[in-house]
Amino acid sequence: MEDVISCNGNDLMAVKDALHVLSGNWKLQIIISLIGGSKRFKEITKEIIGISDKMLSKELKDLEENGLVTRTVYDTFPPKVYYTITEHSTSLKPLLTELRNWGKLHRQVITGKSKLYSK
Amino acid sequence: MEDVISCNGNDLMAVKDALHVLSGNWKLQIIISLIGGSKRFKEITKEIIGISDKMLSKELKDLEENGLVTRTVYDTFPPKVYYTITEHSTSLKPLLTELRNWGKLHRQVITGKSKLYSK
Repeated sequence: MEDVISCNGNDLMAVKDALHVLSGNWKLQIIISLIGGSKRFKEITKEIIGISDKMLSKELKDLEENGLVTRTVYDTFPPKVYYTITEHSTSLKPLLTELRNWGKLHRQVITGKSKLYSK
Repeated sequence: MEDVISCNGNDLMAVKDALHVLSGNWKLQIIISLIGGSKRFKEITKEIIGISDKMLSKELKDLEENGLVTRTVYDTFPPKVYYTITEHSTSLKPLLTELRNWGKLHRQVITGKSKLYSK
């Protein structure tokens, strides 16, 4: 494993960067909710069970700052605001695949359903 | 991206599982510190700058519960305790690679050093 993560700091910082951007309960759910297309604030709250307006607002701001979501205001009356995932969001695909794979394996190991490490 | 993460819940749960186990400031640093070989508590605190005894103790317990680290007590006088990463820890390798890759890309995008998404 040493070839993947050295202790020199740069690799560790990159791993921490990634975890920092994605951790928390909601960010990935929001990105997933927007995969199907742009949505308005209220549409997202309806789709993500349990998220408060305050939390969604904070998370969308974080995602915007990280270049993963854009906010577009349409000059209608009243103005309409749509949230859209960016091209940068699509770069998460291999990482999401690995998170899913490892999460599945881990649950099997923890619940004793995996014989992977049995002697 | 829809083929990777569907909204049906199972995939999302797996992703959340993985993030839950790995998030926080210290867990991956502890695993990385143990890659070189088993270590005693004090040896780990010396290697990881800024971690308190209380925090290391909590994190090691979490890692043990998740099957990523084992704690072995040697019946010497005084007793010696060593922490070792498990085989399950090595299954993190592809995920750590992707976290590192995406973290690096993300920092480049955010700092404007990447021309990836320029029009």
